[in-house]
Amino acid sequence: MKIALDAMGSDAAPSSEVEGALGALAEDTDLGVVLLGLREALEPFQKAIEKARNLEFVEVEQVVDTHEAPSEILKTKTSSSIARGINLLKRGEVDAFVSAGNTGAVMAFSLFTLGRIKGIKRPALGASFPAPSGHTFVLDVGANVDPKPVQLRNYAVMGRIVMEKIFHVPEPRVGLINVGHERGKGNQLTQEAYELLQQAPVRFIGNLEGSEVFCGKVDVIVTDGFTGNVMLKVCEGMGEAVLSTLHTTGKKYRWRSWFSKKVFRDFIGGLNYEESGGAILLGVRGPVIISHGRSSSHAIQNALRLACFVVREGVVDAIKEEFGS
Amino acid sequence: MKIALDAMGSDAAPSSEVEGALGALAEDTDLGVVLLGLREALEPFQKAIEKARNLEFVEVEQVVDTHEAPSEILKTKTSSSIARGINLLKRGEVDAFVSAGNTGAVMAFSLFTLGRIKGIKRPALGASFPAPSGHTFVLDVGANVDPKPVQLRNYAVMGRIVMEKIFHVPEPRVGLINVGHERGKGNQLTQEAYELLQQAPVRFIGNLEGSEVFCGKVDVIVTDGFTGNVMLKVCEGMGEAVLSTLHTTGKKYRWRSWFSKKVFRDFIGGLNYEESGGAILLGVRGPVIISHGRSSSHAIQNALRLACFVVREGVVDAIKEEFGS
Repeated sequence: MKIALDAMGSDAAPSSEVEGALGALAEDTDLGVVLLGLREALEPFQKAIEKARNLEFVEVEQVVDTHEAPSEILKTKTSSSIARGINLLKRGEVDAFVSAGNTGAVMAFSLFTLGRIKGIKRPALGASFPAPSGHTFVLDVGANVDPKPVQLRNYAVMGRIVMEKIFHVPEPRVGLINVGHERGKGNQLTQEAYELLQQAPVRFIGNLEGSEVFCGKVDVIVTDGFTGNVMLKVCEGMGEAVLSTLHTTGKKYRWRSWFSKKVFRDFIGGLNYEESGGAILLGVRGPVIISHGRSSSHAIQNALRLACFVVREGVVDAIKEEFGS
Repeated sequence: MKIALDAMGSDAAPSSEVEGALGALAEDTDLGVVLLGLREALEPFQKAIEKARNLEFVEVEQVVDTHEAPSEILKTKTSSSIARGINLLKRGEVDAFVSAGNTGAVMAFSLFTLGRIKGIKRPALGASFPAPSGHTFVLDVGANVDPKPVQLRNYAVMGRIVMEKIFHVPEPRVGLINVGHERGKGNQLTQEAYELLQQAPVRFIGNLEGSEVFCGKVDVIVTDGFTGNVMLKVCEGMGEAVLSTLHTTGKKYRWRSWFSKKVFRDFIGGLNYEESGGAILLGVRGPVIISHGRSSSHAIQNALRLACFVVREGVVDAIKEEFGS
């Protein structure tokens, strides 16, 4: 198993990436990592890279910035760590690609170079949320902000496959995020998607309100990329705000604050991008993981672990098979 | 100041409503409350109602159920507590109406009987979220799930007025919920709304990601009713999930758990519908407060207090004036 890792992606690149790769390699002796980065950026880590078993370095000439528009990048950044990493995956020289860089750029190169799985018009980003027993897989968390109803149906099928393959949940229950439980509730998109989900090859249990995201009522949550992105980030923000309240109040009661934090982290651990490693880009013809820009080495290590799961459990092939291509 | 209160609205009606009204009357001697309810439902409270100063009882013949469709209700439930309460407001016999009942029914009767403020096509529900210093006012949290861009512009103006009048924030900063900060980000709705917000008579500071809802960067948050509803409920659900985790873990460490809960409640207090009292229905020609179906007497008391603020600070007149009607 060999994974290409964009060494220039995260805010703390390349140190998060190098340390994350070393951590993952120490943990999994079957793993190989190909680090793609600028020579001068990786120079401080040269010795560590040379010493490490199963760690290769591939020099690239360009880096994609966070705010560059994907349409431009496709033309101008063909020698970037993202473009080169996706190329390695396309040629079969690696089994997966991981990046904490510009999400739009990773999606654009994935679509352009790897292509879509037949039957899936637009890919989705799927991320796991914590649930009372294990995880709930939410998609789309931001790949497609104006989807058609049929795309929500396809998200449900892809989410079912991820839950079955990676989380080993048989017949996962699928819910549609909406503003009320009754059929007929919601905006035009969810009203139409409801009908399609009823006929989809998934165990659709109906509409789900926002308050039920964490209650473990479903295994897969389907929503449009706008709502999913806001949902994910609101939870992140709320988690941080609560931790900061605990910290401030805890100054008076130092160790009690530590306790509160520990308990709270037990809960948000699963929500935290540090623990989940990142989101899976589903619907393209290859395993691609997109991590948070603020990823630490710990998050990158978890992203590599997630990539291994996606490859070993054959998620992409299962989606291809389901959609007949 | 006299407020009509739907005594049949909450899940625990009419006891939450009667006790909430008694609490509010004890707190504010200038307040009068008109309780609208079924005679038999209020019978157990008859003595308390008779004894209370400034508390009137108006008998109604019908109750609106939670799941009835608003279109039907307008025809069939004209003698309900909601219809009758809104009628009292229309005739000027009370200054505001408060209900924890069927949101769609309250909106339908408000629109039908009170009418829209000229220039506002669709009303919005606004609710306050906690922020590091005070509150952030979010609208729409669920009145209109498929708004047009111009409606988001009008939400911004109404939100500005609420912040100025009720929270006494001069020149409130307005942000638009989106999937990224840059202009041009987002779905079709937010892309078009961004342009209109730039020209609106508000201090528009741009796009806001979900993670920034609690950071105090803005005073007013504008979003469509679908996203706003999911946002609000996800926070509610996350708060409950965290409290439940604290409870479970805390069995080992009983009093420490109590501490964690207390600290956590300090934060989510502002988010909690129990504390905020409910959402303001903005854009109709009268002060209407819609409370959570799960409201306790404490929540109803806060809803009555919120209604007093809306009336005393002249929120509805200020909106009428701003929109020229």
